[in-house]
Amino acid sequence: MLATIMHAPRDVRCEEIAEPRIEKPTDAIIRLSASCVCGSDLWPYRGANEINEPKAMGHEYCGVVVEVGSAVTSVKPGQFVVGSFCLSDNTCPHCKFGFHSSCVQREIMSGAQAPFARVPLADGSLVATAELPSDDLIPSLLAVSDVLGTGWFAADAAGVQEGSTAVVVGDGAVGLMGVLAAKRMGAARIIAMSRHKTRQDLALEFGATDIISERGDDGVARVKQLTNGVGAESVLECVGTQESMSQAMNCARPGGKIGFVGVPHGVTFDGQYLFRQQKSLLGGAAPVRRYLPYLMDLVLNREISPGKVFDLEVPLTDVAEGYRAMDERRAIKTLLRL
Amino acid sequence: MLATIMHAPRDVRCEEIAEPRIEKPTDAIIRLSASCVCGSDLWPYRGANEINEPKAMGHEYCGVVVEVGSAVTSVKPGQFVVGSFCLSDNTCPHCKFGFHSSCVQREIMSGAQAPFARVPLADGSLVATAELPSDDLIPSLLAVSDVLGTGWFAADAAGVQEGSTAVVVGDGAVGLMGVLAAKRMGAARIIAMSRHKTRQDLALEFGATDIISERGDDGVARVKQLTNGVGAESVLECVGTQESMSQAMNCARPGGKIGFVGVPHGVTFDGQYLFRQQKSLLGGAAPVRRYLPYLMDLVLNREISPGKVFDLEVPLTDVAEGYRAMDERRAIKTLLRL
Repeated sequence: MLATIMHAPRDVRCEEIAEPRIEKPTDAIIRLSASCVCGSDLWPYRGANEINEPKAMGHEYCGVVVEVGSAVTSVKPGQFVVGSFCLSDNTCPHCKFGFHSSCVQREIMSGAQAPFARVPLADGSLVATAELPSDDLIPSLLAVSDVLGTGWFAADAAGVQEGSTAVVVGDGAVGLMGVLAAKRMGAARIIAMSRHKTRQDLALEFGATDIISERGDDGVARVKQLTNGVGAESVLECVGTQESMSQAMNCARPGGKIGFVGVPHGVTFDGQYLFRQQKSLLGGAAPVRRYLPYLMDLVLNREISPGKVFDLEVPLTDVAEGYRAMDERRAIKTLLRL
Repeated sequence: MLATIMHAPRDVRCEEIAEPRIEKPTDAIIRLSASCVCGSDLWPYRGANEINEPKAMGHEYCGVVVEVGSAVTSVKPGQFVVGSFCLSDNTCPHCKFGFHSSCVQREIMSGAQAPFARVPLADGSLVATAELPSDDLIPSLLAVSDVLGTGWFAADAAGVQEGSTAVVVGDGAVGLMGVLAAKRMGAARIIAMSRHKTRQDLALEFGATDIISERGDDGVARVKQLTNGVGAESVLECVGTQESMSQAMNCARPGGKIGFVGVPHGVTFDGQYLFRQQKSLLGGAAPVRRYLPYLMDLVLNREISPGKVFDLEVPLTDVAEGYRAMDERRAIKTLLRL
């Protein structure tokens, strides 16, 4: 089959590789309904993460089960499933505590930018729908696998609740999903920080009440202005740089909460600074599996349309262009037709 | 009057100074019922904080109001009051949000290791009792002002609740108050890390269920052993060094919460480490004013006895010995008779 392989920074190719097969009794093989490129794929693409060997890309997935290992009991061939990008057994103490992304058996999905993929820990990671969903729901179901689940965790970690004021730092796909999540959680005011018209428009569509195009100190000053000098009780940090993290920290009010989901690159915190700030900090790889059944239902009931975050669709053979468009910020998120 | 002045590291003197007087209409003057030395006083004492000029020490206080400024309406001469070491107006948005220690008018109390003290922001900072408390309750009421309130905040920030497992890092007075707080909040298991017999005994008296004398990696391994390899959902960090903070972080389970109240000295966090850890972090100067009425009631109803943390009592004229005993860990916390 054709699959997406990253060889080096900016060198992503669609290449012929062997189809995946069951390797462990806990595996499943799925035929993907669609795939996509993640913002985090841009870290190695841009040279920020090392690439030691050619890497099969793709960790967001949904599709139809074609085969299961002998130990798999919760899903069967023919079922439509969505899984989390973090694979987990859903039975260990960390999973039971809702932190599936710290599962004792945790693995990260790979190779999903391809027509078929092997899903380890299938019982713990996959959630099946009652029936095959209609085609138009596929992009939104695919979004649940990571980008929506991650934005949702950011809002959850930031303690968004009915009536909250939430600030979203980062107008990438995750940030936009954070806006959607904050809206669903009842935030009364959602301030999206974005300077790109198409992203601003999507943020507004997802529920943002205010858009701030300023960054850094100016952006913080605008947030303070909009919140009577107080700051926000919830801040979603969806980038992962020192600049964005500082911005998030400074936008939060004392006692406020920052949920950070942008993988930190070169970010450090001074202990005494954190002490003075008095702001709660929780982040990490999102425990998407915790939210999966609930979020899939919202999509299946057409209550949310996270799939709108895909503003570019290319065939798998053009995956290189899909990456390029995101890297150059011409596209928010690329859907791959398989 | 005689008062405690720090001139340089290890140079604390009891000296004659002018009695305090009302300087602002929002001030009150109190006659202290007792005073004490704080663990945080040891930072400058040990040379970890700079001392640029002779400093009137003492920020923990309770006593009888002798005079109030013209703008003070909530307390009057003759009333017994307890105040927070962080002075606050109790009306600004941060106070209303429960984070009095980030009050827009915030000041830190000083000069309370003396028979009389000036309390700025008296209306916002002081809470009066209905009647004069009996003498034997004075140490416990004094403890509410900072050391208990700070331990309480550590437990609160660490999310201790009914049935929790809590680890307390640090067996100083604040750590021991953290044990008491966790017990009152319903923690089912309270693991105190201490290698000093008298402190271990007091921890057990305050409600610790387990004592761990190992430190560093060995201490973490023992916590893991006691929690089926999982770690604790709540960790109270009551020291403020890189070592204690790492220990706290490593004792918490993914999704667990760390409340840190030891003033960080030389502590830094790597963003990617925090991301991988998936642990919530909240700390700072405790918003004691939030807890003051509740904690004072617990003391007045004799439901808690935080005053037991004072294991040395000296007259004010011997304050230097009071500091020395704490510095050398011969005393947990020194009460000053005035």
